[in-house]
Amino acid sequence: MKATIERATLLKGLSHVQSVVERRNTIPILSNVLLEATAEGGLKLMATDLDLQINETVAAAVDQPGATTVSAHTLFDIARKLPEGSQVSLAAAEGKLTIMAGRAKFQLGTLPRDDFPVIAEGELPVSFELPAETLKQIIDKTRFAISTEETRYYLNGIFWHVSDDPQPVLKAAATDGHRLARVTMPRPDGAEGMPDVIIPRKCVAELRKLLEEIDGSVGVSLSPTKIRFDLGQALLTSKLIDGTFPDYSRVIPTGNDKILKIDPRSFEEGVDRVSTIATEKTRAVKMALDRDKITLSVTSPENGTAAEEVPGEYAATSFEIGFNSRYLLDILGQLHGDTIEVHLADAAAPTLIRENDKSSALYVLMPMRV
Amino acid sequence: MKATIERATLLKGLSHVQSVVERRNTIPILSNVLLEATAEGGLKLMATDLDLQINETVAAAVDQPGATTVSAHTLFDIARKLPEGSQVSLAAAEGKLTIMAGRAKFQLGTLPRDDFPVIAEGELPVSFELPAETLKQIIDKTRFAISTEETRYYLNGIFWHVSDDPQPVLKAAATDGHRLARVTMPRPDGAEGMPDVIIPRKCVAELRKLLEEIDGSVGVSLSPTKIRFDLGQALLTSKLIDGTFPDYSRVIPTGNDKILKIDPRSFEEGVDRVSTIATEKTRAVKMALDRDKITLSVTSPENGTAAEEVPGEYAATSFEIGFNSRYLLDILGQLHGDTIEVHLADAAAPTLIRENDKSSALYVLMPMRV
Repeated sequence: MKATIERATLLKGLSHVQSVVERRNTIPILSNVLLEATAEGGLKLMATDLDLQINETVAAAVDQPGATTVSAHTLFDIARKLPEGSQVSLAAAEGKLTIMAGRAKFQLGTLPRDDFPVIAEGELPVSFELPAETLKQIIDKTRFAISTEETRYYLNGIFWHVSDDPQPVLKAAATDGHRLARVTMPRPDGAEGMPDVIIPRKCVAELRKLLEEIDGSVGVSLSPTKIRFDLGQALLTSKLIDGTFPDYSRVIPTGNDKILKIDPRSFEEGVDRVSTIATEKTRAVKMALDRDKITLSVTSPENGTAAEEVPGEYAATSFEIGFNSRYLLDILGQLHGDTIEVHLADAAAPTLIRENDKSSALYVLMPMRV
Repeated sequence: MKATIERATLLKGLSHVQSVVERRNTIPILSNVLLEATAEGGLKLMATDLDLQINETVAAAVDQPGATTVSAHTLFDIARKLPEGSQVSLAAAEGKLTIMAGRAKFQLGTLPRDDFPVIAEGELPVSFELPAETLKQIIDKTRFAISTEETRYYLNGIFWHVSDDPQPVLKAAATDGHRLARVTMPRPDGAEGMPDVIIPRKCVAELRKLLEEIDGSVGVSLSPTKIRFDLGQALLTSKLIDGTFPDYSRVIPTGNDKILKIDPRSFEEGVDRVSTIATEKTRAVKMALDRDKITLSVTSPENGTAAEEVPGEYAATSFEIGFNSRYLLDILGQLHGDTIEVHLADAAAPTLIRENDKSSALYVLMPMRV
């Protein structure tokens, strides 16, 4: 294999694929990126962790087609440090990849391309398109609620499912048992009959990074076990989480009749301020609801007390409820507009938060005893 | 005590003093900042770790003079989150400090001001002025060489001493046994008869941060055991390291007769590039010196090889020498101009690096076996 590529092009491609590669690997070839110079011209870069795979083809002048694999992070670090604007020549021979640019020359050990594991996609019978902007929103509004508890592996991702509700919709949900985030959107053409899928956290994270550079639309193809995102230059393929997502719709309260309407920014800033004195152990912020007035407060045995009044529209019975301030801030960070609705029942019941009854996203937060 | 202060003023003052306060303290009052509202108006902030103390007075409207102490990091975090442009009222009573701004109210536990430890400066008989810019240079050109080995506590700072050399000079030096950095400057008026002092790493770091905001000149006062930097608004007082700095002048080579003249930027970039494949274990970069040509190379059993040619002016015998790439980069990062001089003897001898024979800074680097 022999190819020449612009340093900036190589760097950009590698920055995408190297991030899939784990820092520590017991299987050596998983540290490597597959480089394939194709006869048609172009350099294909590929990386995998056996669950998630990324493919990207970048422009290159190919002298001799061929393929090899080489340490992804080392090659990325080299590309970063090569002089700006330089042409990088890549040549593989006798178990070595020679990289030359300017006056610098590197030789890296390679592993055979045939040993490089490729995720067998199998058939992906369902496929549809989503605007990149929509996909970003789905991720941003739900990913913070993904559970990090490995024992509850079926919560370690975003759950996608379609339903007729009564309109045909696609719903994305994530929960860690303490909070739930759900986004609903019109079902894209081609998504009818889509199996329920749980997209793993790492796939979500890599996808979100790649979306930063994308404007148009993204092709989504999936089967019950795999999903593929076609981002134009880059192709991201992931195994899906093999588990059953709980029937989350049962925890979404429908009868909460105490309604608070409040400016999300004042609410967020107030919670952020009073939680300054919260410690790792005591994350709870107390909300005392009175007629058109909310008093946020935190008491920390170590640090002292903090309180702040936030104006809001509230006409129901006065009562107090506590929330994990971190969780509340995560949710408020995703809410925009002048007013949001907080639907409360009592100090022990799940609380529903949303912008209004037309908003695509809704959040459920379990209270804490305070 | 009762005072009102602009949030931005309080925040700036606290940002300076809180950084002296250690994150973990076995003595509770060391976590606190002393707040003193003076009858003349103004709020004095003070923090200490028993070795280093900072004092800063900021503008405030004082209703009732008095003093208290309160958690420095908590108060800083609160000040950060208070609304921009707000007026902050501070009132101490009955073991509590009440902080109010906008609709927010905090109460923090206090400890009595009389328990707050103050470093007794004693007499500081030597005092002189240094331009802030000079002080920054002294620190930047030497601090990277300060040893972090706690057992060699006498190397954990920058050594200052005066000498007649044959002109009266003030010299600042730091070394960790592998590299040495020294800056020489004309002796400031008032520094004659100055005792040799070792300024601890933490004092150097805090001083450097404060200097970012200073233009004019800094008053330096010292005794054999204490040093004080007067930065106008802020006053930094530190104990000095009680130890003997080794006679470093003996390690500065004077007879190295192989001279390399090289562009520091190409040299730095070359070393940075080839050391990409160096690992934690193998930090060595090899320099092969030939007539007007230097070849930098790194060999890593794990990663492969890297080599780069850098042009330079060299007319002595060809030979090879190895350096710790990290140490070499630290030094090159401080060197400017078109050319620097590298004075070599052989592969085992200390090497001297400087801009030219007029430059105030010089560096000595021990080679590594390669």
